[in-house]
Order: sequence, then C-alpha cells, then structure tokens
Amino acid sequence: MIKIGIVGGTGYTGVELLRLLATHPQANVVCITSRAESGRQVSDLYGNLRGHFDLAFSEPDPASLAECDLVFFATPNGTAMKMVPELLDAGTRVIDLAADFRLRDPAVWEQWYGMPHSCVDVLAEAVYGLPELNREQIRGARLVANPGCYPTAAALGFLPLVESGLIDTGNLVADCKSGVSGAGRGANAAMLMGEVGESFKAYGVAGHRHLPEIRQTLSWVSTQPVGLTFVPHLVPMIRGIHATLYGRLTGDPGDLQAIFEKRYADEPFVDVLPSGSHPETRSVRGVNHCRMAIHRPQGGDTVVVLSVIDNLTKGAAGQALQNMNLMFGLDEATGLGHVALLP
Amino acid sequence: MIKIGIVGGTGYTGVELLRLLATHPQANVVCITSRAESGRQVSDLYGNLRGHFDLAFSEPDPASLAECDLVFFATPNGTAMKMVPELLDAGTRVIDLAADFRLRDPAVWEQWYGMPHSCVDVLAEAVYGLPELNREQIRGARLVANPGCYPTAAALGFLPLVESGLIDTGNLVADCKSGVSGAGRGANAAMLMGEVGESFKAYGVAGHRHLPEIRQTLSWVSTQPVGLTFVPHLVPMIRGIHATLYGRLTGDPGDLQAIFEKRYADEPFVDVLPSGSHPETRSVRGVNHCRMAIHRPQGGDTVVVLSVIDNLTKGAAGQALQNMNLMFGLDEATGLGHVALLP
Amino acid sequence: MIKIGIVGGTGYTGVELLRLLATHPQANVVCITSRAESGRQVSDLYGNLRGHFDLAFSEPDPASLAECDLVFFATPNGTAMKMVPELLDAGTRVIDLAADFRLRDPAVWEQWYGMPHSCVDVLAEAVYGLPELNREQIRGARLVANPGCYPTAAALGFLPLVESGLIDTGNLVADCKSGVSGAGRGANAAMLMGEVGESFKAYGVAGHRHLPEIRQTLSWVSTQPVGLTFVPHLVPMIRGIHATLYGRLTGDPGDLQAIFEKRYADEPFVDVLPSGSHPETRSVRGVNHCRMAIHRPQGGDTVVVLSVIDNLTKGAAGQALQNMNLMFGLDEATGLGHVALLP
Amino acid sequence: MIKIGIVGGTGYTGVELLRLLATHPQANVVCITSRAESGRQVSDLYGNLRGHFDLAFSEPDPASLAECDLVFFATPNGTAMKMVPELLDAGTRVIDLAADFRLRDPAVWEQWYGMPHSCVDVLAEAVYGLPELNREQIRGARLVANPGCYPTAAALGFLPLVESGLIDTGNLVADCKSGVSGAGRGANAAMLMGEVGESFKAYGVAGHRHLPEIRQTLSWVSTQPVGLTFVPHLVPMIRGIHATLYGRLTGDPGDLQAIFEKRYADEPFVDVLPSGSHPETRSVRGVNHCRMAIHRPQGGDTVVVLSVIDNLTKGAAGQALQNMNLMFGLDEATGLGHVALLP
Repeated sequence: MIKIGIVGGTGYTGVELLRLLATHPQANVVCITSRAESGRQVSDLYGNLRGHFDLAFSEPDPASLAECDLVFFATPNGTAMKMVPELLDAGTRVIDLAADFRLRDPAVWEQWYGMPHSCVDVLAEAVYGLPELNREQIRGARLVANPGCYPTAAALGFLPLVESGLIDTGNLVADCKSGVSGAGRGANAAMLMGEVGESFKAYGVAGHRHLPEIRQTLSWVSTQPVGLTFVPHLVPMIRGIHATLYGRLTGDPGDLQAIFEKRYADEPFVDVLPSGSHPETRSVRGVNHCRMAIHRPQGGDTVVVLSVIDNLTKGAAGQALQNMNLMFGLDEATGLGHVALLP
Repeated sequence: MIKIGIVGGTGYTGVELLRLLATHPQANVVCITSRAESGRQVSDLYGNLRGHFDLAFSEPDPASLAECDLVFFATPNGTAMKMVPELLDAGTRVIDLAADFRLRDPAVWEQWYGMPHSCVDVLAEAVYGLPELNREQIRGARLVANPGCYPTAAALGFLPLVESGLIDTGNLVADCKSGVSGAGRGANAAMLMGEVGESFKAYGVAGHRHLPEIRQTLSWVSTQPVGLTFVPHLVPMIRGIHATLYGRLTGDPGDLQAIFEKRYADEPFVDVLPSGSHPETRSVRGVNHCRMAIHRPQGGDTVVVLSVIDNLTKGAAGQALQNMNLMFGLDEATGLGHVALLP
Repeated sequence: MIKIGIVGGTGYTGVELLRLLATHPQANVVCITSRAESGRQVSDLYGNLRGHFDLAFSEPDPASLAECDLVFFATPNGTAMKMVPELLDAGTRVIDLAADFRLRDPAVWEQWYGMPHSCVDVLAEAVYGLPELNREQIRGARLVANPGCYPTAAALGFLPLVESGLIDTGNLVADCKSGVSGAGRGANAAMLMGEVGESFKAYGVAGHRHLPEIRQTLSWVSTQPVGLTFVPHLVPMIRGIHATLYGRLTGDPGDLQAIFEKRYADEPFVDVLPSGSHPETRSVRGVNHCRMAIHRPQGGDTVVVLSVIDNLTKGAAGQALQNMNLMFGLDEATGLGHVALLP
Repeated sequence: MIKIGIVGGTGYTGVELLRLLATHPQANVVCITSRAESGRQVSDLYGNLRGHFDLAFSEPDPASLAECDLVFFATPNGTAMKMVPELLDAGTRVIDLAADFRLRDPAVWEQWYGMPHSCVDVLAEAVYGLPELNREQIRGARLVANPGCYPTAAALGFLPLVESGLIDTGNLVADCKSGVSGAGRGANAAMLMGEVGESFKAYGVAGHRHLPEIRQTLSWVSTQPVGLTFVPHLVPMIRGIHATLYGRLTGDPGDLQAIFEKRYADEPFVDVLPSGSHPETRSVRGVNHCRMAIHRPQGGDTVVVLSVIDNLTKGAAGQALQNMNLMFGLDEATGLGHVALLP
C-alpha cells in the first residue's frame, strides 16, 4: 500500500482525488490537510464520501507529510514550491496538481504567475507528467508536475500533427471550452450559477496561463517555432473540456486517421474515434480518458482535431493517479477502470 | 460468472445496466437485444462504453435468452409479461425493470396500465425487489419485479414511520422531484432541453402510475389503510430523485432519528444522515445509495423526511444488480462500491 | 415622471428593477447607490443594460435620496429600517424589497431576523405590498413592504381556499422550489454552479424566514389558527418559483376551479389555468404574473394548488413596480406588459 | 397596422415571432398556420402567450395569407419556395426565416439542401436580410431572406475586417457555439435534455449548411476569394450563439477597435464593447442585439473577434421584425426595445 498525503484537499481537485483513491487497491490516504476545515470530517464536507473515508482534515504538518510515500499538492499556485524541497529531502515523492513545476523556465513562470520561483533547482528535476509524452521519465521521478486541464486536452490533440511535422506550427489555434468546475470551489461571485448558468463566454483572450504551458509541450516535439492562439471559454456545465484545434497542413498529410491511431495505439487512456466522429464531453465524465476525432473539412488544408477530457480526471486527479501508478511500478490503469457516467 | 441477457437495452436503464455490469466481477453479458438497433455496436450508441464491451445489439431471440442464467428486461411496460413465462420454464431467472410484475393485484395493474395482465399466475410468484423489505424472498426468487424510481425513494423514507405506527397513514403526502432521465430516451418533444431546461413543473397530479405502487408497499407494513397524495415534479437536471415526505404524528414518537438509524443500521445502501441534514441528489449520483434525513419542523406534529436516490441506479439498474447479487448468492454490494460523482 | 432612487442596486433584485424601469414610461431613475461599486457605470456591471442607462453607482447620500419621489430599497435585511424614517419625514415614499417591514409584530421580526427592530412606529404604518390582498391600502401608502418571493407564490395559491374557509388551516403544507437567483449575487461558495448545478435539495427545513410571513398573511384572512409546514428547495435553474400547496378539505368545497377563477377574475397578474393544468415556471420567466392550477387528486379530500412566479419579478422587482404604479395613481400594469421569455 | 400572417408557427422561431409581435405597436397578427395543431389556441401550446393572443392555429390557406400585408415563413426548408411566388403575385410581401432564399446560386442551394430550387426567378429578386449590409435594398424588397443564426453572428463579426481588407480572407476560422433551441422543437431524441444537458460537442464539422451562407456574405465584400473553416458546437443552454472568429492580419491594421466602432457607429443593434471585453450570450438574451469585442492576443498577427447574439432573436425572429420595420417604413427599432433578461 502506498501511504498518501494530500495537501489542500477541500477543492474540486481534492474531492476528485479522494473519489478515485477511495477505490484504488494500493492507496492508503493517511493525511489530508486544510487550514480552513481542520478538524472537520472529509465526508461532512463532501457527502459522496460518506462511508468511504473515516478521515478528518488536519493542519498541514511537514513531519506527518514526510512520513508519506507520496504527497499530492492540490493547493493554490505558489504553495507547493515552498514545501516540496523539504519533502523530497525526506524521501517523499510528490505530485503537484498546481502549476508550480509545470514551466521549465523560471522566467516564464514568473512572467505568467507573477511571483519568483522559490526553488529553481528542484524545478529543474521536475518531470512534466503527461504519460503519453514522458512515460519513462515519470517512472523514475521524485517530483511530477501534473499538467493543466486545457494543456492536456490541447497537447494530446496536437501531438501527432506536430511530431510528424505535418502542420505549420507557427499558426496554431486552440479554441477550448471548459465546464465551470475548472474555476475551483472558492467563493467567487463570478462563478455563481446565477452568473454562469445559461450563458456562454470567452475569457482570458489577452493571455491565459495555460498558453505558455501548451506552447512549451508542443515546442518539445517541434522542429519549428510554435505560435499559438489560445482562447478559453466557459460552458454552463460542471465537468468537461472540449478542445477544438486548428492547424494548416504544409503538404499532403497522407492518412491522418491512421497517423493518430498509430500514435495512440498503445495508450490506455487515449481513444481515437472513428473517422467522422464528434466526441462528447459526457463520454469521458468521471473517467481518465481523452477521446478525440480528426477532421479535414471539405478536404482542404485545415485540420481540425476535436479532443475531450474530464477536466477533473484526465485534466487533474485522474492523470495524477496515472502518474502515481507509473511512479510506484503499478499497472498504469490501476484504479482507473471506471466507465463514464452517461447520461 | 453469471451469464446475462438484457432485453431492450437502448434506453437509459439499459446503458446504466451496462455501465454497472462492465465492472461487476461476476457478470458476463452475452446478449443484449434491440429490434431498432440490431447489428449496431453497443459502444457506437453509447460512447462511454467504448473499450468496455465488444457486443452488438441483436434481435430478441427466445432460445438465446433461455440459455442465460439471468435476463434483465429494460423494456416498455407490457413487454416482459409476454416473454417471462417461457424463460422461467427454461430455468432462466428474470429481473424486470419495467412495471409488469410490480402490482400484485391484476385488476389494479389493468386499471393503471390500461391493459389486462397476460400471466396472472406468474405475477403471483413475483417478488417485489426492494431488498430493504423483501431480502429473503428475493434470494430465492425466480422472478423479481424491480421497484419504480419514485416508489423506491418514497417507500424507503416512509417505511420506518409506517412500520412503527407513528404516523397517520390515512393522509400521507409524497412531494417528489425527478431529473429528466426518468422519462427515458424516446424521441419526445416534451423532453427536449429547449422544453424542460431552466424550468420546473409538476405533472401527473391527477394520478401517476407510481401512486398505487407506493401505496401497495406501505400497505404491506401498515395496520391501517393508506391514503396517499403523490405529486411528481420534473427538475431541470439529468439524474436524481428527491422525495419530500410528510406525515402527521399520532402521538409522541420518541427519538425519530434513532428509529431511522436503527431501522437501517445493517443496510448497505441506506444512509441516514445526521439530524438536521439536507441530502443533495448529487451525493448519490451514479451510486446505489439512498440518503435520507428526518425533520420535525418547530417540534410540531408533522414529520418531514427527505430522501434522495439516483433514479437510474438505486431507482433502476443499481437496485437490479443488488437483486441479482442476492438471487445468485453473492455479497449484496458486489460491483456496487462506486463513489458518487461530485461535483 | 416619477423621480426614483434605488439603494443597493448591485444584486439581482437591483438589476431586475433596472431592467423593468428602463422601459417604464413614467420612471426616471436618478440615483442608484452602492458603496462597493461607487463610481462604476451600471451598464459595466450588467451588460444587458448597455444603451439603456447612462448612470453610475454612487455612495448612498440621504439628501439626494430625499429629493426622490420614491426610493426602492434592494438592500440586505436591516438596512432599510435605519434610513426609512428620515426619508418619510422628507416626504419621500418608500418600497422596501427586503424584509424589514414585512412582519407586523416586532417580536416576531426579532425572533426570525436576529436583531431588534429599529423603528417600530414606522413599522406600524407599513403596508404589506400584496396588491391582490391590500390594493387600496397600497394606493395611499407612504411605505410598502414588498412581499418575499416564496410568500407571494404561496399566499396567492392559498388565499382563495383560506378566505372561503374550505380547508383545515391548522395543517397546511407548502412544498416550495426556487431557482438559484433567490439566493442573491453575493460571493458564496454554496451557490457556485459547481455546487448547485445538476443537483436538487431542500434547505431550511427547521425554519425559514418566509414561514412566519406566509403564516401572517394567511392569518389575516383566516378565522382559525394557521399551522403551516414550509419546506423550501433549491432547483438547478436561475429564475422561477414553484409552490406546491396542500390542504385538507373540511367538507364539500363545490367547484374549486370556479372559486379560484372568481377570486382572481379582475386581477391583471394572476392567471388561473384551466382545470387539469400544470403551470411551468418558464411560462412566467421575466414577467409579473402568477399562474396557478387547482387539483383534487382522485377526488379525495386533499386539495393541491400549483402556483408559479418568477422570483425576481412577481416575487420581487415586478411586484415592486406594481406597487409603485398603485402608489402613484398609474394603471397598475404600466410598464409590466412583457411576454415571458419562452423557450 | 400591418396585417400579418405566419406560416408554420409551432416551432421556436414561431413562438419568438409571436412574443415580439405581441408588443409591436404596428403589428396585427391575423393568421398563424399549422397543419398539426390546427384548431388549437396558440396560448394553449405556449403558456407564455396567455392573455396576449386570442388566436388559434389554422390550416394554411393561400387566399387568407394573400390578404395579409406581410407573411412570415417559419417553416422547414423547402416549404416557402413553393408558396412565395403566388403570394408575391397577390401583392403580399414575404420574409422567409428558413433557408429557401438565402443562397443566390441555385446550384449551391441544391448542393447543400439536397433539392432543386423551385422558383429560381423569384430567388433572383430576394434580398438577403442583414440590415447592417443591405439596409437600402431591404426597404424596397418584396421578399427578404432572413439570415441564418450562425451567419448573422459570424458575418457581423468578420465584416469590418473583410471590408477593410485587413485580413487574409483565404484562411478564416469561425468556431461557433449555439444553444439547443437552434435545433428546433421537433421530436428528436438527440436533443433530449438527457442527451445534450451537461455535455458539449462539435457537430457537422465535415460541412454545415451555414458555411456557404457565411462565405457568400463575406465574398460580397471581399476582393479576394474567401476560404472559411466553420465548426459549430452545441452548448448545454437554451438560447444564445457565441462566434469566436479568427483571421490573420496581412499588415499593420492600425486601431482595430476604432475600425469596428466606426463601422457600427450608427447601427442600432450592433454594440462594440470596450477593448478587452468578453461578451456573454446572456447579455443579449431575448433581444435583437449583437454584442462583440475585438482582441489581438499578445499583439500578434491573429485577430480574434467575439460576437454574441440570441439565436432566436437577432438570429431569427428579431431580425425578421427589424426587416419588417424597414420594409414598412417604420423606425427600424420599433417594438425591439427590450432589455436582455439577466440573470
């Protein structure tokens, strides 16, 4: 059994971690921290956990955390980087679900997150936890930076095209749509149901923090500079991300469908739908899968990839468990065999 | 492994059965019928099942069904009663998720369902599949009538009060609310999102088919005649039933909370919440639990019970699996250990 | 033109007032206050008002307000009672959309609202602004207490039954359901779409502040003591209230449909639907109407009234304008002729 | 008063026409046809119209329609073209809200709509009813082809860029999102709330009928060939379209914000938001406005225009009334002064 601690477990990422860990055969959650809810039963805050966890939130205590085999950080950005070095020194491994270790370049991190990085040396060893790209490095990692939700959906959709050099990477468009749980569980008038229900809007068009993250991932596999326009939108639903990705072919791509199917043939959590499909976000609700479809409208030179994930699962807690399985030598799909809740 | 057939699997009850059976360790679905979708892959109709079932819909064939250990009927009312006698004769056991075998009195059935019952003798041996009431009979049953969704939520909430003789059974009120999946997946303009989204209404106030079913259940445990007013409502959400139940105390009831907790102490799927609670339907989304809370507003003589289930799980397919587990000597909770999807 | 001030206009009641006042032919909004948003254009906060108002929020200033003919209070409970006496002294008339002047008995107010009433003498002259009950008093009133949302829906539905002495007023049940806008626009994690979307629950079963208000209204027209069980529920939609009201007949009521139709024959904003109907909340979305239907299930002795309003319109700002029209001698329906937005 | 007939008024476009016509000071609806609902009161089908129309659906009768000053067609594609020539001959003017007269080239029409055009000569005189482009021709038209919903949102957003020659028209992207009312009110299992609620997907990526319509409009104002990728998506809400439009600048565009503001300075129904804005669909719910914002992320060479309309209002019935006002010499905004319903 893996002895697990969770720092900052009161948000949606936290409850999703607990939902998945509750039925994971090798996970033993021994500690979950929250300053605000310290002393309160986890199942009191989240009614769905009644009967599954007999555990109360506690004040974060470095010594207790250091006794864990693995600590998940489900904290606001900037928190993990202050605690991680000490945990690593104690031999505890870490998966950070926030952004602290996602961007390799500390200067870029500071630019987009508005604060200097407090442990640049540790940042250098962090592995970006997208198993479809970095599986082997994740297995050996002490510290995994769990990818953002939009970056997971967008990167998985673009990867086969960029890796194969088929599209003009200088002018990519990622038009992405997310359910409201992506904004978290903080008290925020802008996310009231009265504000976001029955309405649709874009946000952050001038620049969203997931832009440099997507660009970084694509740059790793591209021989050309990556230019990306990223426009996130808010959908009046709770879970799900739909990325609609546009790229221009630089020549005859051959059989795009076959290229995607081959790229992901051995991936347990990427499902390339039959040609002509339109994936629905509900088809991945609550599961760790990314489903995608490839289109070339009217046979023109624009490729359109449709890629869906559950932002809380493959876009956060599910992918974190996938990374945990890899780090601890388990079958990658352990505890992640759920069927999506439909309808 | 239990060899399982499903008749009429294209509706929401069907896909929910498949979702739950996909991860049940003792279930082997060998046959799923649909005249309309014959030949089509199950996972083509329901994207969430991709990778979980390699099975196509087939024309209903009595011989193939008779080779199963168990057949679930997820058909419109009036279909199962035509096929069940032959299956029982062949030694196949049956769980009917429709209403054909729910009402003991054929005359009452005919009155509410508008057709004569075609196998009154078989009806006589059917067991009403509410494990919290009929567990032992279910274990030995050849034919189980799986309860309706509203009747499950309402009966579980009223049972402790009626069994203990604490309330005036002549004047019960069940004000119930259901998500739209309860109306099924048929093409019906009245259930378009454009019609039922962002709106709330009652329906069937003059008389709904679940009224005699609830009344029948309560009559079994009551020493007095049961008078019930049942008003169902449609909620703009997909899954979930909330029953708000009103009864008048006939005297000092003592500790109502304790009465409920004792009644359900050993029930794996009934969760009596702490005093003062308000259960949310999302706390049981996708799981087989009924969660409930008991109130006595202002200490008066009206008891209010709040009872929530997922209409497709404890209200249909989940309860059917619970019944299957009992019928086949398995642990009652086998394959039903999911955690509700929240948020 | 009526010179109008609004105190506390940043909430949903405020924006609804502005929406309706924008097209009212006799209304001239000269002042709208908000400490938090002082200086900000109204149309900047509420995009739907762009082009309709060239007005900024201002700090509340008693002198400016006193120059208005009418001041609406759309403030938290306890604010209006501190400012109203001074305004009345200055000759300004007031409609309070909060609860400060709804309960006649200061002791009851203090019990339910947790603070002493600061102007009991002024309270004594306040008129409860339900035009269907108090039309004549409203015409002459200096101070109108605009009814609560639930109390409007519940009282209108019960009134004909209680006035005619047809039901046992000692055991009324009001099972009410409201869209989320009823909880206001304050930053409150409990009202995030991630928390209340796709879920349904009751709340405040132990005692909700609208209970004494409904009881008070019914007591005014009843010869018997009024006993009421009131259970509010939260519906995952934005606007709308549905009250499902239960009462027991004390004898043969005659033609209930005719009784209701006669009671409301001259009411411009109460619509008694044909017998057998089920009103939908969307049929009153954005309009000042209450639509209702009367049922007597299975011809028994329980009457069920279904009553729907828009909580922000007839349940708040629309009724406030109706009261304004009466107070200023206008046709009662002036500026309230909208057609509900459907779908 | 304009004597008005409506052919095919049972769908969402029909009820929206009636909602708007109910309060239009110059409109007198004398006839509304529906074969399926013939004889039924309009207000019986649409509860929001109770008290506003005393009118029943009737069988379509050419003679009665020919007595109208204006006939709106809110019919399935292919119906209007069979009836319009006769009406025009009788001196009746026509606004077709379907697609029959939108595409100038009958061959293109046949390609996308799968049937030959039955009155090519009449097609030649039809005016495409986008007032912001064709105001003068609309004034004199006998027959107006009311634009599609997506085409209205997309064309208004692209027009200033294309007219000014600032972008590469060969590679435009229109990523559009619509509420479910765009799919109409027909009985269609794919549009059940159980199917489309709480989910998001693209559809018609291979080719949607609005693609040639948008391309046609942009071609009228472009000096270069227009290449467009159009991807529509379905949003789990009822009303609203959000178009996210991408174009590549061909050089220094100067002040884009000023270009848009100037282009639409005199337009009563186009609202260019301040720089940096993100329009919400709810800000135009139920009104005839298009609100838009212009972005140039990170100062790069990609322009992003965000354009929102209500698909049933500016995207259908509202624009039809705007056209009617122009055709009959009224102020263009007559009867269209509503404030959007928010929240």
